[in-house]
Amino acid sequence: MLSALDLARRIDAGALTPAAVIDLCAEAIAKCEAEIGAFTALDIDAARQHAMKSADALKATPLRGLPVGFKDLFDTTDFPAEYGTAIYAGHRPRADASLVAMTRRAGGILLGKTVTTELAHMQPARTRNPRNPAHTPGGSSSGSAAAVAAGMLPIAFGTQTGGSVIRPAAFCGVAAIKPSYKLLPTVGVKCFSWHLDTAGVFGASVADVAFVTGAVTARDLRIDGAAPEAPRIALVRTHVWPEATDAMKAAVETAARRAEQAGARVTELTLPPIFEEAWRAQGTVQDYEAYRALAFEHERHRDKLSPGLLALLDNAAGISADAYDAARRVSRRARRMLADLMADADVLLTASAPGAAPAGFATTGSPAFNKLWTLMGAPCVNVPGLNDSSGLPLGVQIVGRFGRDREALQAAAFLEQAVAPSP
Amino acid sequence: MLSALDLARRIDAGALTPAAVIDLCAEAIAKCEAEIGAFTALDIDAARQHAMKSADALKATPLRGLPVGFKDLFDTTDFPAEYGTAIYAGHRPRADASLVAMTRRAGGILLGKTVTTELAHMQPARTRNPRNPAHTPGGSSSGSAAAVAAGMLPIAFGTQTGGSVIRPAAFCGVAAIKPSYKLLPTVGVKCFSWHLDTAGVFGASVADVAFVTGAVTARDLRIDGAAPEAPRIALVRTHVWPEATDAMKAAVETAARRAEQAGARVTELTLPPIFEEAWRAQGTVQDYEAYRALAFEHERHRDKLSPGLLALLDNAAGISADAYDAARRVSRRARRMLADLMADADVLLTASAPGAAPAGFATTGSPAFNKLWTLMGAPCVNVPGLNDSSGLPLGVQIVGRFGRDREALQAAAFLEQAVAPSP
Repeated sequence: MLSALDLARRIDAGALTPAAVIDLCAEAIAKCEAEIGAFTALDIDAARQHAMKSADALKATPLRGLPVGFKDLFDTTDFPAEYGTAIYAGHRPRADASLVAMTRRAGGILLGKTVTTELAHMQPARTRNPRNPAHTPGGSSSGSAAAVAAGMLPIAFGTQTGGSVIRPAAFCGVAAIKPSYKLLPTVGVKCFSWHLDTAGVFGASVADVAFVTGAVTARDLRIDGAAPEAPRIALVRTHVWPEATDAMKAAVETAARRAEQAGARVTELTLPPIFEEAWRAQGTVQDYEAYRALAFEHERHRDKLSPGLLALLDNAAGISADAYDAARRVSRRARRMLADLMADADVLLTASAPGAAPAGFATTGSPAFNKLWTLMGAPCVNVPGLNDSSGLPLGVQIVGRFGRDREALQAAAFLEQAVAPSP
Repeated sequence: MLSALDLARRIDAGALTPAAVIDLCAEAIAKCEAEIGAFTALDIDAARQHAMKSADALKATPLRGLPVGFKDLFDTTDFPAEYGTAIYAGHRPRADASLVAMTRRAGGILLGKTVTTELAHMQPARTRNPRNPAHTPGGSSSGSAAAVAAGMLPIAFGTQTGGSVIRPAAFCGVAAIKPSYKLLPTVGVKCFSWHLDTAGVFGASVADVAFVTGAVTARDLRIDGAAPEAPRIALVRTHVWPEATDAMKAAVETAARRAEQAGARVTELTLPPIFEEAWRAQGTVQDYEAYRALAFEHERHRDKLSPGLLALLDNAAGISADAYDAARRVSRRARRMLADLMADADVLLTASAPGAAPAGFATTGSPAFNKLWTLMGAPCVNVPGLNDSSGLPLGVQIVGRFGRDREALQAAAFLEQAVAPSP
């Protein structure tokens, strides 16, 4: 994989130019893209020209002219934005999404758009998992996770409404952050559910995604300076624990043990029943809002929607305002309670997904281990490094307190180091 | 003015067809539009054809085929969406905004788009105030307020980030609701500030906007059935009270007295200092987010921005993440405190604007009496009916508790009745 931090350091040292980084990506793309199918659009030549023409200015920017990819759910002026559906075939937005413009402002160069499932929902797309191309890469940010995993990009952006950043990161064995709700703006991102949609970042390691998130937001999130302090971790299984495979259960236990051996304080936390209610409320909020956010597509383009998404929207028409309001109240209560429960822990540790990436392409996997945290608006980081017996990644997840993205990233970096095989 | 409720009742009674309502609007438009300039685009023929072709189906819908206008900040497939700026000249969105699609779903017919100031900010546009064409109609939802005031539309939609729904409604003497934050989705509405932008509804009376808001959201908000119960009202002046004109101060006092005479319990409430802090925090949140929401326009189209908006964005680049986070924390604290302070009152009563519509077109007026309530996410209703000595409207404002839009509408309808001149 290409580490954004490592590339930035080599550019700082004069050992690499922004254009040379584009060439590294181009090589990996030439080698892998035909099999992996991570991109919906690419313009390597334009990126290289931009990198060469503005080399000196770019070297002085937070992102040093590093190439980035955006999930094809983000509006872009120089690439089509088709949102994974024939409804938007050939669509060219008039403006860049905020995060796209912010990334360019920070000195990132847009190399291409990455595959999304249909309107960021569950219908699998064509991307293959670089760790084993017979397995799904996860969704809905399939292309962003796969492009980073295959070394075709050092940085890619995605979005999560249920589990669409953390799950594909876990399946593809890359680091990713789904930051606190609205830390990264979703203006100009095709909406599925306005209280849930959250933009996120994929990279080779936790320090890489911290570097990138800090660079585009001009926030102090970079954590690669010093060794991270030992965090207070609460292992939390949640009511969906029985859905986890034995290998995943073992991976979470292993992560906890190694964190403890490395000096972390690890306790166990059992969530009160309201969090099971909140987990279900995520579906109510998501579907009620999707019926409105996608009203145009549902009314005018029924015939172009997949059967799964059409059924979701048809059923969502029956969700009452009362049911939605009740779901929102449960969310608020659970959010307050989570803050109280975490008074004594810096972060939570749980699984990023029920197990490793499922074989085949009938599904992008289950968001069961993500929905609650998306609803909580809490920062979530996928920590890569553990594998199952077949060598497929088993991602574990650090969940932080709302607004404490730096602490979540530090704890995740600590854990990443703790679980890494000794050299 | 055209009352949406009255028109709906006459359609129900068979006394009027949806097409005949379009004709009523067309007549008023022929008479007033050249002077008022409320519309950016109109398609009366298409609306009439739709109304005639689908008359029976429309009569059975919540909105009965009534014609509506949308501020030109909403994306529409059958009209351009230019957001009040040359940057988007001729722009045809690929999808309808959620609220546009929801309004069509509820049986509304889109008659045209209404004038917005540049990107919903302060630069005055060409619309004149129907109550006195030598005065501003207010902004940024200038065209929507003026179109309803001039009887050219029974229903129009706008948005508020500072005071852009309540202020123009007050200046033009129409009813309007800026509902609780996100009650009406802003998906497909050009964003200025994602934590503040709120869609709202203009109509002839409070009962009209209640009817329309209920119809498009499928919520139980209609209040025209029975006489509204006498509310518990807290008169609140806020720290900007000295900015109010003597006429406005008198209008608020008159409203309080008449409400009391009609049976309401009226108390006075002095807000603690944190609300002054929150008032200032609104500007920090708005500008910090605008610098990111409008990053594309700021980076690529500086030359097409007005000097005022360009200066705002240039200055906003200097707002730190810490200052923004602090402003958001103040907002959250003030929101919780407001809920406590209102434990004993159904609604607050205050001014909708510092006074009547200013003469001339150098400014759209001040949002000083709106910013705090937008930040609070609270439902706000402009109650028309009072005037200054020259006959210009003096709007007073009912502010409800977050999520209690029905109670806010009921109290506003009560007040509207109380201040109306006896027949």
